[in-house]
Amino acid sequence: MKTFKDSVKVGIDDMVAYIPGIYLPIEALAQARHIEYAKLNKGLGLTSMSYPDAHEDAATMAANAIRRLIEQNGISPQQIGRIYMGTESALDGSKPTASYVLGMLSQYFEEDFGNDCFRNCDVVDLTFACIGAVDAMQNTLDWVRGGEDRVGIVVGSDIAKYDLVSTGEYTQGAGAIAMLIKKAPRLIAFESDWGVSCKSVHDFFKPKRKYNKADIINEVLDMAGITSTTAEELLNRLNGHLEGKGIISMSDKAVYLHKDTPVFDGPYSNDCYQARIKEALQHFADQAQLETDEAITDNWRRLIFHLPYAFQARRMFSEIYLEESKKRGDFEELLKETGIGEPQEEQFETLKDFQKAKGQFLRAITKTARYRQFVQEKIEKGERASSQVGNLYTSSIFLSLMSTLEADLEANVALEGQLFGFFAYGSGAKSKVFEGEVQPGWKEVVSRFRLMNGLSDRKAIKYSTYEQLHRAEATESVQKPQNEFAVVGIHEERDDQEGARTYKWVAKVVEKRGAHV
Amino acid sequence: MKTFKDSVKVGIDDMVAYIPGIYLPIEALAQARHIEYAKLNKGLGLTSMSYPDAHEDAATMAANAIRRLIEQNGISPQQIGRIYMGTESALDGSKPTASYVLGMLSQYFEEDFGNDCFRNCDVVDLTFACIGAVDAMQNTLDWVRGGEDRVGIVVGSDIAKYDLVSTGEYTQGAGAIAMLIKKAPRLIAFESDWGVSCKSVHDFFKPKRKYNKADIINEVLDMAGITSTTAEELLNRLNGHLEGKGIISMSDKAVYLHKDTPVFDGPYSNDCYQARIKEALQHFADQAQLETDEAITDNWRRLIFHLPYAFQARRMFSEIYLEESKKRGDFEELLKETGIGEPQEEQFETLKDFQKAKGQFLRAITKTARYRQFVQEKIEKGERASSQVGNLYTSSIFLSLMSTLEADLEANVALEGQLFGFFAYGSGAKSKVFEGEVQPGWKEVVSRFRLMNGLSDRKAIKYSTYEQLHRAEATESVQKPQNEFAVVGIHEERDDQEGARTYKWVAKVVEKRGAHV
Repeated sequence: MKTFKDSVKVGIDDMVAYIPGIYLPIEALAQARHIEYAKLNKGLGLTSMSYPDAHEDAATMAANAIRRLIEQNGISPQQIGRIYMGTESALDGSKPTASYVLGMLSQYFEEDFGNDCFRNCDVVDLTFACIGAVDAMQNTLDWVRGGEDRVGIVVGSDIAKYDLVSTGEYTQGAGAIAMLIKKAPRLIAFESDWGVSCKSVHDFFKPKRKYNKADIINEVLDMAGITSTTAEELLNRLNGHLEGKGIISMSDKAVYLHKDTPVFDGPYSNDCYQARIKEALQHFADQAQLETDEAITDNWRRLIFHLPYAFQARRMFSEIYLEESKKRGDFEELLKETGIGEPQEEQFETLKDFQKAKGQFLRAITKTARYRQFVQEKIEKGERASSQVGNLYTSSIFLSLMSTLEADLEANVALEGQLFGFFAYGSGAKSKVFEGEVQPGWKEVVSRFRLMNGLSDRKAIKYSTYEQLHRAEATESVQKPQNEFAVVGIHEERDDQEGARTYKWVAKVVEKRGAHV
Repeated sequence: MKTFKDSVKVGIDDMVAYIPGIYLPIEALAQARHIEYAKLNKGLGLTSMSYPDAHEDAATMAANAIRRLIEQNGISPQQIGRIYMGTESALDGSKPTASYVLGMLSQYFEEDFGNDCFRNCDVVDLTFACIGAVDAMQNTLDWVRGGEDRVGIVVGSDIAKYDLVSTGEYTQGAGAIAMLIKKAPRLIAFESDWGVSCKSVHDFFKPKRKYNKADIINEVLDMAGITSTTAEELLNRLNGHLEGKGIISMSDKAVYLHKDTPVFDGPYSNDCYQARIKEALQHFADQAQLETDEAITDNWRRLIFHLPYAFQARRMFSEIYLEESKKRGDFEELLKETGIGEPQEEQFETLKDFQKAKGQFLRAITKTARYRQFVQEKIEKGERASSQVGNLYTSSIFLSLMSTLEADLEANVALEGQLFGFFAYGSGAKSKVFEGEVQPGWKEVVSRFRLMNGLSDRKAIKYSTYEQLHRAEATESVQKPQNEFAVVGIHEERDDQEGARTYKWVAKVVEKRGAHV
């Protein structure tokens, strides 16, 4: 058994999840898309997906989580040395979303703490798909270690939005998780040696989408029955006379579209996830200088994953489980349970055939009582919130941690001193595998999470409302903002403030709003 | 005199600048825009602006700089624990530009170092306008401090592009700077206490630009003489039938445009720069626990700035210079030289009048022999490369450092053990002020920079070529890529690889290319 070796303990002292107050039941989406609900519910573990209301974006969600984190811990803004943000839902290509968050928090706290209470707070965005907040945390842990009395906040905030009718649609979700990072943390402490694996791939990304202006014009004119020769002439006139004025009249031949939704290949992304975490785990093991015959996951009471959908980890962890069982020495028993032998490459004529057989074998493992027991013990508690929320991108792994701890508190499990293994993944692609130790103060902290209770207080929306929100056609919020930050305006004039976003704190108006998590 | 207090020295061991091989003389731009050249050259210090060739982007420039850094230091890819990138010219909203860089480097080094030689290298993008690479460096310094034998690379890479005919156009530039970060660095070591100031403002940003599809259609149809009732009908038909197919037929009512160029307010951004560095300097002083009557800049042999244009620092540093002269005790002499008294707020009826008078006074300071001497001694060497290159955004401050060191080496200045003060700024807005100590090995390292020599080897382009490149209408590179990474394709089909970028290393073909810096 491995013991925790870092002398100065640094880690997460407290966590707050902000999940939007509305959600779409997966059953409603399944109906609208003519998908069998059981496929999504029993197959992928999906029950509902949180959806941002009309007044919410990645910045408001982050600010909402951080505000509560600061208040419930009674810390002053001046104590907070940094707010590091992981997001792939950035609102700007230059100004970090974290700066918008800072703006909201400054507004909120200035009455009690003075005008510039966040003046010396260092904020920045880290971008690497779903792993950005983990990167933010790792760097903040290093920063806290490096000085006296340093307190930092790490926040992940995202809207996991996919195109309507796309195969990613049912894995949407939205929310933010904020974490207080300090020495002698009450919740969980992390060691400084992490495993990492990185490779440039295109499994999921958000490129600029190029559109030729001539094509746009032709498309419109075509609908109006006008020939493309005329279109060419029109384009030239527009370019000549309207330089810089609008989309059609921009100087370049092409325009680049920003879309919140990704370009992606789901099955390929699963493969990348699986390959990267395997490599990162190996790297972790190399650094931890474990015995070669040691089953690393045996050291870990719980496994905490990035979960694009609730059952992602249990579906794809069987490969590592298989390798571990060989080290542990119960491979023969496992084999007996699967009822089929492990396919060897030399038995097959093509690599494809081998891979297919390997896939079948790994799926067979997931059906063994042994593996199910392993999932139940080490993974399942982390899935519970994900089932209710969907994918949070950068915060997903931290939601899994909160979900696990809350479930363990409820089940009265003794976790103090126990080690957790973390498996983070970001498309594009990178994985990090690292280890945390549950701290003596965990119960007190977790008892305030109110995670599952908060989720059950949310309001369900109808499919039609969801579609309206998705198309950004909803002019009003489903639930009026109360005791939360809200987007109040986006400057639309084509001047030197074009696109500037304004926010404000909306105090509670009438009655208690249950939807706040 | 302050002494350097950190025991373990961590800092920049080596630096490489990659500047594109072509540039536009500012004189050519001045002519095309009917601006007096002297205003740009004598007024702002601009001589030429580097411009990316058709095959270049933020990823190729970064990869080019890092490749040389790795090779000239004889390090193996496996030794490099991280490549942290600062950029505001990101190619994707989810997949970090650093991952593209990793892809190119992996390709290049796999022959000598094996297939997955960068497998365990941690890469990520940090976004905060022009200060992202400084953030990347600060975090990498912390990371190097926290373990044995850690070696990291930090790279800033940007294309500072403004709209044609905009007031920012003459401050464009392009390039990347890569830095090797390790313990016992040969070049410059940094302390771990940094000053920071942060405030959410909109001085310069790159928002999503919203365009209503109905407006686009109306604009086109208007040119074709078709009434907008028909347009409304067309829009509905398009939405109904062509869901998800193209720009006009996207499901949402509006489309969001990505533009590489910013929304900005130049004078306001200058004010923000000035306010933030003043606050960050104060924060630095608080942490360094200096005597209240100590003129901090007296400790610093050179001042290294983020330079949006070459003379930015000398133009706006007079306010801090004024405050420092009061501490130093030569305020009366300074006052005598300006010939006017320092305006006091109570002398003026309105704040505006006071600010105007204060501005005049600060400008008068910049004209004193005393201040000019200060600029010449502490700032001017850092401006030299900027004059030839333009704004590099995230790398600008590091270009200023390289420029200073190379000029000092040439002038045979004894810098070992000298302290430099750094003033970083990123719009949106944040400043960091920090301190570095020149290390004994600096001369050997700087002698390989070949910065100014490399710049003089570049090829000038004509205004018309510049405009073609700016509009992305150039189908061929001005200079064929040689011994460098180049963009070879961007996937244009609307499938699960849409927008994916491919790169390759282009070996030297015929004769020596002089343009490489």
